[in-house]
Amino acid sequence: MAQKPSIPKGTRDFSPIEMARRDYIFETITEQFRLFGFHRIETPAMENLSTLMGKYGEEGDKLLFKILNSGDFLKSVSDEELLQRNLPKLNNALCEKGLRYDLTVPFARYVVQHRGDLQMPFKRFQIQPVWRADRPQKGRYREFYQCDADIVGSDSLLNEADLLQLIDNVFDRLKIRVAIKLNNRKILSGIAEILECPDKLVDITVAIDKIEKIGLDAVNEELTAKGLSPAQLERLRPILTLDGDNAAKMSVMQQTLASSPTGMAGIEELKFVVDAFESLGHIAQLDLDFSLARGLNYYTGTIIEVKALDVEIGSITGGGRYDNLTGVFGMPGLSGVGISFGADRIYDVLNALDLFPDSLSGAAKVLFVNFGQDESMQALKMLKVLRSNGISGQLYPDTSKMKKQMGFANSEKIPYVAIIGETELANNTVTLKNMDSGEQNELTLADLIEKLK
Amino acid sequence: MAQKPSIPKGTRDFSPIEMARRDYIFETITEQFRLFGFHRIETPAMENLSTLMGKYGEEGDKLLFKILNSGDFLKSVSDEELLQRNLPKLNNALCEKGLRYDLTVPFARYVVQHRGDLQMPFKRFQIQPVWRADRPQKGRYREFYQCDADIVGSDSLLNEADLLQLIDNVFDRLKIRVAIKLNNRKILSGIAEILECPDKLVDITVAIDKIEKIGLDAVNEELTAKGLSPAQLERLRPILTLDGDNAAKMSVMQQTLASSPTGMAGIEELKFVVDAFESLGHIAQLDLDFSLARGLNYYTGTIIEVKALDVEIGSITGGGRYDNLTGVFGMPGLSGVGISFGADRIYDVLNALDLFPDSLSGAAKVLFVNFGQDESMQALKMLKVLRSNGISGQLYPDTSKMKKQMGFANSEKIPYVAIIGETELANNTVTLKNMDSGEQNELTLADLIEKLK
Repeated sequence: MAQKPSIPKGTRDFSPIEMARRDYIFETITEQFRLFGFHRIETPAMENLSTLMGKYGEEGDKLLFKILNSGDFLKSVSDEELLQRNLPKLNNALCEKGLRYDLTVPFARYVVQHRGDLQMPFKRFQIQPVWRADRPQKGRYREFYQCDADIVGSDSLLNEADLLQLIDNVFDRLKIRVAIKLNNRKILSGIAEILECPDKLVDITVAIDKIEKIGLDAVNEELTAKGLSPAQLERLRPILTLDGDNAAKMSVMQQTLASSPTGMAGIEELKFVVDAFESLGHIAQLDLDFSLARGLNYYTGTIIEVKALDVEIGSITGGGRYDNLTGVFGMPGLSGVGISFGADRIYDVLNALDLFPDSLSGAAKVLFVNFGQDESMQALKMLKVLRSNGISGQLYPDTSKMKKQMGFANSEKIPYVAIIGETELANNTVTLKNMDSGEQNELTLADLIEKLK
Repeated sequence: MAQKPSIPKGTRDFSPIEMARRDYIFETITEQFRLFGFHRIETPAMENLSTLMGKYGEEGDKLLFKILNSGDFLKSVSDEELLQRNLPKLNNALCEKGLRYDLTVPFARYVVQHRGDLQMPFKRFQIQPVWRADRPQKGRYREFYQCDADIVGSDSLLNEADLLQLIDNVFDRLKIRVAIKLNNRKILSGIAEILECPDKLVDITVAIDKIEKIGLDAVNEELTAKGLSPAQLERLRPILTLDGDNAAKMSVMQQTLASSPTGMAGIEELKFVVDAFESLGHIAQLDLDFSLARGLNYYTGTIIEVKALDVEIGSITGGGRYDNLTGVFGMPGLSGVGISFGADRIYDVLNALDLFPDSLSGAAKVLFVNFGQDESMQALKMLKVLRSNGISGQLYPDTSKMKKQMGFANSEKIPYVAIIGETELANNTVTLKNMDSGEQNELTLADLIEKLK
C-alpha cells in the first residue's frame, strides 16, 4: 500500500483551479439554458444494458463500460458456457447494467418512460458525465461531461433559430470568437438524388465530409472506388468547390438541387433558419457548409457545428434536428432538435487563448492570520459578519509563524490578508493588507465590509 | 423493444421540478462552502479497485460496483480457475476498476497523489454521486450524492468551530430547525478506560449508541453478554442516564472521567469547541450526546451529527475529526476534520415540511404565445432583449390554438404570458398576462423588462 495511488487511465482528477474554471464554463452554459426556458433533468449513471446496447453501432457496444452483476455473477452461466469463452454472450450473462455512453439515449429513454408526465414541447438540459472505453489519447478521455439541450415535440424551425441564439450568447459570454456552421440533412439527400444514387448517400456524405482534410482529388478517388462515374463526379463538382459568401453558396446550391424536391425542402429550411438568425442579429460568424454531415444516421434536418476561430481544434459544439429520437423505445415520430456543448474542448480553447477571468482562483477573498486564542476568536466573529454579507473568507487555523501564514495567502492567491494583533484587538479593528499592492490600512468592521464587497 | 424502458433498481431519474429543488439544496450548501474558503475538487467516478478494496470492511467490499475489464476480460483466467467459480478471485481477475463508494477514500487518494501541489491546510469540498450495491429500500439508493467538506493538515479546534458555523448557516438558510449533536471520541475512550476494559471500547460504544433505540436494560443485557461485570455496568450508569442541560452533562462527565487522561483530553476539546460555538452565536440547538459514536473506527476526536427537529428521520449531516486519513495510502499522521451533508434526506425534510420556495419550478418567467410568422419573429426579438436583462423566457414554437398555448403555460407554471397579435405588432408593444391574477396590460418593451425584472 506504500505504492503511490493512481487513477484509471483516461480519467482525471480536477484540482481547485481546474474546477473553478470548469464551473465557470458550466455556469455560463447553465445560465443561458435557464434564460431560454430549458429545464434541468438528471438520469442515473447506470442504465440497463438493454437500454444502451445496439444504439451506438457495433463499435459503440464494445465501448460501453459494463458493470458486473452483484452477488453470484456466474449463477446463470453453465460450466460449458464458461469454457466456450464467448465474450459477448458472457458479457450479457455477467452484466445487466452499463455506464451511460452519452446523454441522448438516456434522454430518449426518459421521454418514453415519463411521457405521461411531460408537457410537449419539452425543453430539457442535462449536464452530466458520460463514459466510453475508448483508447485514451490527448484530448480524449474515458470520463467526460456532456452539456446537452434539446427541444422535443415540436418541428418548428423557430426552435433552431432560438438554439442558434443560445449558442451565440454562450460564446459571446465566454469571449470565444466562433463560426457556426450550418447544413441540412435534406440537402445531403438532395445531392444523392440529383446524382441518381440515393443508395450511396452515406458514401457520398462521408467522402465530402473529408473535403477539407484530404482535398478534391482524394475525395474523387474515394468516390470512384465507391462506384461513382466520372459523370456523377462532374455533377458533384460545383458542390465540392463552392465559393463565395453564404448567399452565393445558397444560390449555386439552389440551382444545382432544383430537380430534387427533398433537396429544395432542405434549402427552404436552411434559408428560414439563416434568415431568422440574421434578422435577430448575432455576433458569431455564420457559415453555410454543405460538407457538414455529423451524425448522419441520426440527424434528419438542420445540422449545426461550432468551430473556434482562433484555435486549431475540432468542433466545440454540435447538434441538429432528428425525427425519431424515441422510436427505438417504441414511441415513433417524435421530432426534436438539440445541441451539445463540448466542455472539455471549450476548456482547452479558453486556456489556449488565456480567456479565463483572473478572478477564477476559487480562493477566498480574505485570510485572517492567526496570532493566538483571543485574536482568532475575534477573527471568527468578524468572518461571521463578512460571510453573512456574501464575502468569502477564512482563518488560518494554526498559530504558525507570520511568514508561513502570509506565504499561504500568497500561494493560494488570496487577495487580502486581515491582521488582528494586540492593537487591533484593543481598538476593535483589523489591519487589511492588499496582497497585490502591499497597501495596508487599519479598518473598522464596517469599513472592512465596504472594502471587500 | 416495444417494452417500456426502465432504469436499474435503486437508481432514479430526476424531473425538472426535482432538479430545481435539488439544485436549491446543492447551491445553498455550495454557497456556504465557498464563503468559508473551501475549494471544489472532483475525482473520477471510477477508481482502481486497489484504491477502494479493504477500505470499507468486508461488507463494504461486497457493496462495490465493479466494472468489467474492456476487451478479453477472461484473458488472465485459466479454464481451471473458471470452473472453480471462486467469486472474489474471479472478481479480481475480471475487474480492475470500481465505482466510488464514498468521497472520503477518493479524497484521501487525491491528497496523497497530489501532495506536492497542495498547500496545507487544504480545505476542499466535493459534491458528486457515489454508488453502493446495497439492497434498495425506502430512502436508500444505489446512486446518491454526497456533499463533503474537509480541512486537512491542521489539528486546530478552530476548524471544528468554523465547520459548526457552516452547518448552522446551511440549515438557517434552508429554514430547517436542527439539533447539532456533539461528542468526542476521546471521551468514549475515557469511558472504556475508567471501566478498565479498553479492549471492549467497540462493544461499549456500539451498545451505548443504541441507548435511545433499545433502552438501558437492553443495553446492560448486551454489555453483560459482552463480558462486563455488574460493577462495571454500575460505573457506566451515570453516563447512560445523563440528564439536564449541556453544562450539567459536561460536569457529570468531567467527574466521572477524572481518572482518565484520555477522557479528560476529550472533555477539554469538547469544551473548547462548545465554548467557541457559543461565543460566536448560533441558531441551531446544540446537544452534547455522549452516546454519539458514528464511524468509530475512523474518527479520533470531535464527532458531529445533525438531526432535524421537526421530522422523524435519521441524521441529515455528520462528520468529525480523524488523525489518519491517508495512512492507508502511505502518508501517515495527516489530521483533518470533515462534514458530509446528506442531500437526499435534506430533500425529504424540506419536502415533508413544505419548505421549498414556491419559485423553484424551474420554469421560465414568461411564455410568448405564437400567432404566426411575423408575430413570433417579433417575440424572438423581444426575448433576446429580455434574456440579456437576465429574464428567462421562451416562445411557444408552434402556432397551436390559443387555448393549448395558455394551457401549456399553466401546467408548466410559467407565471406570465406575453401576447403579440396584430395590434401589438403594429404598436410595437406586447400584452402581458399575469397567469395568477389574470391581470392584463399592454406594455412597451421597456415596461415589460421593468415588470418582469
